Amino acid sequence: MAAPSTTVNVAEKFALFEDQWSPRIIGQINDLHLKAVKIEGEFVWHTHHDTDEFFLVRSGRMTIQLRGRDDVTLDAGEFFVVPKGVEHRPVAHEECQILLLEPAGAVNTGDATDTDLTAQDEWI
Amino acid sequence: MAAPSTTVNVAEKFALFEDQWSPRIIGQINDLHLKAVKIEGEFVWHTHHDTDEFFLVRSGRMTIQLRGRDDVTLDAGEFFVVPKGVEHRPVAHEECQILLLEPAGAVNTGDATDTDLTAQDEWI
Repeated sequence: MAAPSTTVNVAEKFALFEDQWSPRIIGQINDLHLKAVKIEGEFVWHTHHDTDEFFLVRSGRMTIQLRGRDDVTLDAGEFFVVPKGVEHRPVAHEECQILLLEPAGAVNTGDATDTDLTAQDEWI
Repeated sequence: MAAPSTTVNVAEKFALFEDQWSPRIIGQINDLHLKAVKIEGEFVWHTHHDTDEFFLVRSGRMTIQLRGRDDVTLDAGEFFVVPKGVEHRPVAHEECQILLLEPAGAVNTGDATDTDLTAQDEWI
């Protein structure tokens, strides 16, 4: 599915799926995909060597563990940009809905490509 | 001011300024700036020849007039991506708070650079 040239209601997109750790692409700005994701539990430690990664919390609370730095905690309405090259691990104790920005084609698990959590992102 | 490596609360950023049509930079993902803007009234018709432009409404309602296409109306929680090369004009009948994504260095009025609304965007 190509990038739609229509308005997108973010809440309606989140209502279309239930599975966690499986990003859905909901928009594209130049080479970046905007993705909707539901997360709960601990992801894998990974690094995106070629790109920053943007996390905006829509509901719930998440922590981003950063290798060699203090953890970052995000509540609804807050965002954080993980700089490229910084190893990180998202964690959420209860289900958390987040929006991500990362380049089209980026693998959700970064350099940790051999995990059960590695997803093939799809447009919805 | 360089890109901060801290969490950002979007509501707190919007509370820092009152002037309209003057985007503030609140984040950076690779070469894209995330900007907070308050708008009311009619902007100028303009085109970004080299980039898409992302509009997400946080509060209020806006219309994006598109040359040769139907208008697009966005309520809170909805977004639209104006494809590069498409002439457009944002309009809001009451104050509307929006988030924008566009490349660092992009001029808010695109190719219409000689207007009273052309702004020098600043980090907050």
